[in-house]
Amino acid sequence: MMIIMKANATPQQVEAVIEQVKLAGLNVHLSQGVEATIIGAVGETHNVPMERFERLDGVNLVQRITQPYKLASRQFHPEDSVISLDGLSIGGNEIAVIAGPCSVESRSQILETAQAVKEAGASALRGGVFKPRTSPYSFQGLGEEGLELLAEARELTGLPIVVEIMSQVQVDVMVKYVDVLQVGARNMQNFNLLRAIGATRTAVLLKRGLSATVEELLMSAEYILAGGNTRVMLCERGIRTFETSTRNTTDINAIPVLKNTTHLPVILDPSHSTGHANYVAAIARAGIAAGADGLIIEVHPDPAKAVSDGKQSLKPEQFAEMVYQTGQIAQIMGRRLATSRDFQLVKNGWA
Amino acid sequence: MMIIMKANATPQQVEAVIEQVKLAGLNVHLSQGVEATIIGAVGETHNVPMERFERLDGVNLVQRITQPYKLASRQFHPEDSVISLDGLSIGGNEIAVIAGPCSVESRSQILETAQAVKEAGASALRGGVFKPRTSPYSFQGLGEEGLELLAEARELTGLPIVVEIMSQVQVDVMVKYVDVLQVGARNMQNFNLLRAIGATRTAVLLKRGLSATVEELLMSAEYILAGGNTRVMLCERGIRTFETSTRNTTDINAIPVLKNTTHLPVILDPSHSTGHANYVAAIARAGIAAGADGLIIEVHPDPAKAVSDGKQSLKPEQFAEMVYQTGQIAQIMGRRLATSRDFQLVKNGWA
Amino acid sequence: MMIIMKANATPQQVEAVIEQVKLAGLNVHLSQGVEATIIGAVGETHNVPMERFERLDGVNLVQRITQPYKLASRQFHPEDSVISLDGLSIGGNEIAVIAGPCSVESRSQILETAQAVKEAGASALRGGVFKPRTSPYSFQGLGEEGLELLAEARELTGLPIVVEIMSQVQVDVMVKYVDVLQVGARNMQNFNLLRAIGATRTAVLLKRGLSATVEELLMSAEYILAGGNTRVMLCERGIRTFETSTRNTTDINAIPVLKNTTHLPVILDPSHSTGHANYVAAIARAGIAAGADGLIIEVHPDPAKAVSDGKQSLKPEQFAEMVYQTGQIAQIMGRRLATSRDFQLVKNGWA
Amino acid sequence: MMIIMKANATPQQVEAVIEQVKLAGLNVHLSQGVEATIIGAVGETHNVPMERFERLDGVNLVQRITQPYKLASRQFHPEDSVISLDGLSIGGNEIAVIAGPCSVESRSQILETAQAVKEAGASALRGGVFKPRTSPYSFQGLGEEGLELLAEARELTGLPIVVEIMSQVQVDVMVKYVDVLQVGARNMQNFNLLRAIGATRTAVLLKRGLSATVEELLMSAEYILAGGNTRVMLCERGIRTFETSTRNTTDINAIPVLKNTTHLPVILDPSHSTGHANYVAAIARAGIAAGADGLIIEVHPDPAKAVSDGKQSLKPEQFAEMVYQTGQIAQIMGRRLATSRDFQLVKNGWA
Repeated sequence: MMIIMKANATPQQVEAVIEQVKLAGLNVHLSQGVEATIIGAVGETHNVPMERFERLDGVNLVQRITQPYKLASRQFHPEDSVISLDGLSIGGNEIAVIAGPCSVESRSQILETAQAVKEAGASALRGGVFKPRTSPYSFQGLGEEGLELLAEARELTGLPIVVEIMSQVQVDVMVKYVDVLQVGARNMQNFNLLRAIGATRTAVLLKRGLSATVEELLMSAEYILAGGNTRVMLCERGIRTFETSTRNTTDINAIPVLKNTTHLPVILDPSHSTGHANYVAAIARAGIAAGADGLIIEVHPDPAKAVSDGKQSLKPEQFAEMVYQTGQIAQIMGRRLATSRDFQLVKNGWA
Repeated sequence: MMIIMKANATPQQVEAVIEQVKLAGLNVHLSQGVEATIIGAVGETHNVPMERFERLDGVNLVQRITQPYKLASRQFHPEDSVISLDGLSIGGNEIAVIAGPCSVESRSQILETAQAVKEAGASALRGGVFKPRTSPYSFQGLGEEGLELLAEARELTGLPIVVEIMSQVQVDVMVKYVDVLQVGARNMQNFNLLRAIGATRTAVLLKRGLSATVEELLMSAEYILAGGNTRVMLCERGIRTFETSTRNTTDINAIPVLKNTTHLPVILDPSHSTGHANYVAAIARAGIAAGADGLIIEVHPDPAKAVSDGKQSLKPEQFAEMVYQTGQIAQIMGRRLATSRDFQLVKNGWA
Repeated sequence: MMIIMKANATPQQVEAVIEQVKLAGLNVHLSQGVEATIIGAVGETHNVPMERFERLDGVNLVQRITQPYKLASRQFHPEDSVISLDGLSIGGNEIAVIAGPCSVESRSQILETAQAVKEAGASALRGGVFKPRTSPYSFQGLGEEGLELLAEARELTGLPIVVEIMSQVQVDVMVKYVDVLQVGARNMQNFNLLRAIGATRTAVLLKRGLSATVEELLMSAEYILAGGNTRVMLCERGIRTFETSTRNTTDINAIPVLKNTTHLPVILDPSHSTGHANYVAAIARAGIAAGADGLIIEVHPDPAKAVSDGKQSLKPEQFAEMVYQTGQIAQIMGRRLATSRDFQLVKNGWA
Repeated sequence: MMIIMKANATPQQVEAVIEQVKLAGLNVHLSQGVEATIIGAVGETHNVPMERFERLDGVNLVQRITQPYKLASRQFHPEDSVISLDGLSIGGNEIAVIAGPCSVESRSQILETAQAVKEAGASALRGGVFKPRTSPYSFQGLGEEGLELLAEARELTGLPIVVEIMSQVQVDVMVKYVDVLQVGARNMQNFNLLRAIGATRTAVLLKRGLSATVEELLMSAEYILAGGNTRVMLCERGIRTFETSTRNTTDINAIPVLKNTTHLPVILDPSHSTGHANYVAAIARAGIAAGADGLIIEVHPDPAKAVSDGKQSLKPEQFAEMVYQTGQIAQIMGRRLATSRDFQLVKNGWA
């Protein structure tokens, strides 16, 4: 970290900053420039907020040279992390396809969907039981009953299950049932929840907040990693911008940026990042082409009857086509989809 | 709500939509236009997500005519809500000034600050004890010990205390101590927390999320109101935009927009919305001039030594000057600051 | 267009709106709903701004049912437009790859680059001679001398040339030299320039503004089309958001959205949309996978010595690798790159 | 400017950077840190783009210490600039109120409006004759005929006139007629236009672009100043964000930020920054309270009949009330409105 003093900073102000650097447990490297004095602060700087120095008198600006996170950083951990999930590996050569309905609505709905997505090539099953809804008057999910239905679907199909957790008080019941704890965009900076999840050893799918930077996403991952839970996957699900023709703006740049800065697997959610069923396949293909390690896709047997997110849900046959298309691109990239052993990509022509 | 069918929608599709409108408990008003059939859905439409119809076949678009919230709406409740707080009234003619440090750091720090802000004209005391920090390596707050120190400060000064709550599991301990539960920007859509607070009768300061729309802020207020807790204040604290010269962008427009659409009091937080101590007074003045019902301001006896947010904290003397300036503008607006009875505005000249 | 009156609108207000609808040359379809009176305005509504009715007394809101543009719309022109360019066709089955330096710097630089990009598979040559620079102190381009060098490069390689035009006063000199007039992001709403270009018959590459919506991009295209120049290509080049890890945010969603709403060819510029040479190939692949009809790429023989945009320029060998990768994806999509006849895709392994 | 090398940069890379710094006409100050070598580049750095060094091998990041503009900077010119305009002074103690219709529509409309705004306290008259319209089918302005009508209005009222210029080819005709050349948001980075205006000595009102940063606004001002035209005023007119309840988001923070960084006068346009007539007065008050040197307000004798921007135009009596309110706040701030000599603020009560 470099602390650049104002041109007219006094020797006393420089001294005061140096003292604070030392108090923060860092070493000092002083450089008397022509335009400004620069105080280098060397050591475990990811522990130290820049603000600690920015507020001191005589300071012009503070510039980090190294990243404000450590455990999530590729510098600290150069090899790709691979998350093992009961036969499924995410983050290596195979590309995971997580699919299922926005909400678990009924036994028949979830079992039927689970079968359908498995047949179409899914590697894991998603389904919400605690639903974060903007309106208090909307459907809020089936709760633990939904978890039991998901467990039944897993038994039937062998697919691991991915379920959103909304609060630290749900941790105990969730880890009994689920294979992957999903942290939703609205909870990316629910630090109590992140800490509670960090204390478990269950795999996590951490979604980027609507207006979170890539760096903030990695800081939130750091919370979980710092708790000792290293099984973290990151998920780009679209950011909020001024554009209104789609629900969110897919930040496709975030995929190569994350692959460059972190060792954690990167998943793309084109259902939320577009908000329209007819754009999902195009963006899923783009995500794999950009280097994503997996996809999470909303699929519903009858989207027009879905209690939530019907507009962006694929029908099973649309999903199957998307799997075929992304599987082709995966091959070009020297990778393959993590579909069940006996699954065959079948061409139905491009959408 | 109006459901506008596509030009080529079939009679069967129109029928299917009408059936869904009836299932949602709404009445149907059909209009056969030249370019499109329009299905009016009439009744308690705030209960019904638009998405329920958007996903149906043959639908072009769905347009709300009335707001998606009810209890928070000025249409439903035309008179301004006034929140009473142990002698202090927020939302009426008096303008509240909540002030104090970002974090409670020590007994002497909080008692000294409480005295200083009272003397400078504050109506209430703020102080954080559970801190939402981006980095897991930053100071996370004193917890319940901090609550006790705040209670002591209240006893000393008579100022009601405003404290951030981060999780539903903190509700019990918080309501024992605090006068106002503050919900931070990152938790504006932590729906479990909102529901838990809705079940209490403690006053709430609900901060707008970094990238939440005004409508989403009101939907989150609706969660608390729907639980029966009507003592809700809203807080504009800056939104995230592309501009980097300030920490956030103060959405000053939100003040007249909120005063127009809701009866709930509207507070401005210029400390977070600017992020720089030297812009706080200008934006505080602007907020009062735009019609805000109160301010919340970070004040620290020695900002350079604050464990958090030092860069945006005012010194007590800067705060006193800001109180004087905003008090003058309040008078022009036909209002007055809710300072203690014996407080006198004293001019020190403009910043 | 539908004009929805307020619940308490008077019959006089309804009459006044009806009169305005008729004055705008539209037919009226009146529907007396339960919650509101709706006035349908039917006819050539793309000629009529919504604002014309929004400002009238008693109006709640105005909702378009059809698009505010016509000539650019796929509804009006269902078949894909194909722009012919001296042997090269853009918008059909072949995918164009436009490449070259940000600025023409010297004779040797542009001739060398032209040869290099041709050998690597480019279909057209780009190069700036009038440069829109944020700072008045930066290099502003070679002007007409640069146009002559580009013409020489075209003669040498047979590649058509794409050059940015910055002002209506440059139209005459530009159309003498260039094959494609590029309108930069900062000029997307320079309506005088758009009209001047609309009066020519030279092909146009219209770049999306930094904060322009997809709809505004199409409205700007409509300006050119309305002048009689139908040879318009659209270019996504990244939008401005809060994210700072890349120069802009590639709005990859815009590609399927545009392919759905317009018949005009869609080009992606991953050089500007990422701002970093090491992310260009990943985003170029994503663009082709999402359905783009072409790419425009900054290539420089020695990026470290480029007078502008060196950070995001590929070296010729990096460009060749990118061409190989995107060519592979094009094949999967059932398309091919519009490279010169004798060009062979050669694999060098993935970046 | 500081160039921070990567930890593993080679001595050759450091040498190559030093050579480039010298070629840019800057002096070198080398500092061998523990984590990184830092190369200080000292001198007229505002002439040198950071990019010139960012692209070099071995460079981690480049950090400016001083601003990238000079003539617009308060450091270079500590005193407030005051623009004299035929008796009216903008930027000193008096606050200018520019008012008038969006478009000049007819002789009677502009003469009537000019009289009305003068009586209500306006200091200058605005009116558009070349209109930048999103749609090619919208009204495009009266052109030179409109300029003649504005000149007549000036003669009648004595108010100086402020008119938008859209293209460098309009400079000659515009400077014959107008007192202030307005550069619209969409042209803030039309560098040919800026240069052409820089060559005149006519006063300029430079509006901030929809998604331009404060720094970019100052860079555009620098273009005009560098041409020798020092009579530049800056205008905040709202930026584009995700919020949709208002047309734009007023960046009220920009006012104190600009007052801090530049000596140029700062004007607020609450008509465009809100887009709704009923929010204009609140935001005008806020602007003056935040330190703005003036306001520009759309006023129309019959907003419902305005050919453009009717939704955000005030009626003359609403404008008069706004003048009264802002005049009161100006007094509190120790300033006064630059109204005509015989004008008296009259209270009609707050909106």
